[in-house]
Amino acid sequence: MCVACTHTIHRAQSHFGWNRAFDPAIVARSGETILFECLDSSGGQIGADATLDTLASLDFGRINPVTGPVYVEGAEPGDALKITLNAFHPSGLGWTANIPGFGLLADQFKEPALHVWTYDKNQMAPAAFGPKGRVPLKPFTGTIGLAPAEAGLHSVVPPRRVGGNMDIRDLTAGVTLYLPVEVEGGLLSIGDTHAAQGDGEVCGTAIESRMDVEVKVELVKDARLAAPRFTTSGPVTRHLDGAGYEVTTGIGPDLMTAAREAVSRMVDLLCAEHGLNPVDAYMLCSVCADLRISEIVDLPNWVVSFYFPRIVFE
Amino acid sequence: MCVACTHTIHRAQSHFGWNRAFDPAIVARSGETILFECLDSSGGQIGADATLDTLASLDFGRINPVTGPVYVEGAEPGDALKITLNAFHPSGLGWTANIPGFGLLADQFKEPALHVWTYDKNQMAPAAFGPKGRVPLKPFTGTIGLAPAEAGLHSVVPPRRVGGNMDIRDLTAGVTLYLPVEVEGGLLSIGDTHAAQGDGEVCGTAIESRMDVEVKVELVKDARLAAPRFTTSGPVTRHLDGAGYEVTTGIGPDLMTAAREAVSRMVDLLCAEHGLNPVDAYMLCSVCADLRISEIVDLPNWVVSFYFPRIVFE
Repeated sequence: MCVACTHTIHRAQSHFGWNRAFDPAIVARSGETILFECLDSSGGQIGADATLDTLASLDFGRINPVTGPVYVEGAEPGDALKITLNAFHPSGLGWTANIPGFGLLADQFKEPALHVWTYDKNQMAPAAFGPKGRVPLKPFTGTIGLAPAEAGLHSVVPPRRVGGNMDIRDLTAGVTLYLPVEVEGGLLSIGDTHAAQGDGEVCGTAIESRMDVEVKVELVKDARLAAPRFTTSGPVTRHLDGAGYEVTTGIGPDLMTAAREAVSRMVDLLCAEHGLNPVDAYMLCSVCADLRISEIVDLPNWVVSFYFPRIVFE
Repeated sequence: MCVACTHTIHRAQSHFGWNRAFDPAIVARSGETILFECLDSSGGQIGADATLDTLASLDFGRINPVTGPVYVEGAEPGDALKITLNAFHPSGLGWTANIPGFGLLADQFKEPALHVWTYDKNQMAPAAFGPKGRVPLKPFTGTIGLAPAEAGLHSVVPPRRVGGNMDIRDLTAGVTLYLPVEVEGGLLSIGDTHAAQGDGEVCGTAIESRMDVEVKVELVKDARLAAPRFTTSGPVTRHLDGAGYEVTTGIGPDLMTAAREAVSRMVDLLCAEHGLNPVDAYMLCSVCADLRISEIVDLPNWVVSFYFPRIVFE
């Protein structure tokens, strides 16, 4: 129950892609708190009894619905929306998939794979990945954004200056996010909620999970914000850093190649040390391990490191 | 004092660049513990009374000396060295510089700048950055590596498969690092010690600081290691994450451009919010803020985020 909310946007009030011409689901005033009922990124197609057949028959036209949009009174291009993520109400059910053609190592992992998660939505205890590993949870919103200025329909897949499918795993409860407004009213929508994810979302999916999100929306006039930014009120990794990390590296002149090598080496390490099969290791990495740029100045070679939290196997 | 050490390699036993033909400073057996007396990355040229004139007259031929090399008995190509970083003994003096032509935003910061730090080498309390900000310290080795297989002298600047100038800020006390051996004896050298650094080392320097490093060296036969990897025994950011983070983003199809934009936006934010001048903000970012790849799969746009720890200004 949301005590502060003055609006609820229901699951049925979702849209596909971004378009400044979409009719607002509601009109809100600066300072109001809104409950967004969000679908999972499959739009409900992948449920508790999903199988590889479900994955194979996914309707990609129904991927990543977002709930909204919210028209904020007085918002104009040049302003920013200040969005405080007050609370997440997870569903207890989630899924992670390797979808052929999608993901950082799509060339190496060409076969579909699916893991369906159940977790305690009240205690949010670490969730079991089959018999191997337990993943700490921290719900966040994968997609949160405003309508772009440019007319027409824009794919939901890539994030943009106005936000969108940023998949920043630290957009959790307690965070304040600032997004640049490009159209009148801003037109805020939220979806693609995740129960956990590592930095990078390397296999292309997180623990995709339907949940409700409470946010407070405030208008910052004439903010002249170049791109999304956010403030966390406290630490961001303490739910999973207690036992330290296994870290692999990629070293070379291209950050993308270095990132791919670091992830590929972690997959190999997890398979060797924990007897996982490669695609399971890859999906597990996606939901808990972090891609970091350790060094970006020692010409001509950069270092990308991939941090896997050891607590998953303790 | 190093209780377990059976060898000391002195500061005078340093070399410039990597070369498989260098004579070993010592020969060690697997399992031995060694004290490396390391110089700072200026090779002692930048001291407590350094000024911009000192920076202008730097002899780049004496940059980044490394102490060693250690020949490990029995090490052969295909093996790995397992290097446990037991302890760091910092000097209490350090420096951070913007060196023209070097650094992630070299095109924006063309003028030299220098900050000399003093810190409590026993308590290792956060170190003051002039009147603005106090930076939590966590000493580590910026450069640790083996000799490459290829004959001849190799620049110390870029890191490689055998390690070297990796500038991974989590190579701190308690960490176990694995490096691939490419030549007989491995030829381990260490230097470029830092009192603190953020992921990325964005301005090109950290808190550069002379210190001694105790390491245990073990041989892992036939390890077939593709690239450096390491294990941390515990959390890596708790010395600085207590107050949360300010985070800026760069969003687009190129990771390097996104990283540059995220850092540039953080410089702007710190200037606006804390009255820093830009080059000071840039140097401060380099010693404490982290570049992370939030999302690398949502074609065609990736998200690089830059995390600045708020505790610095609290």
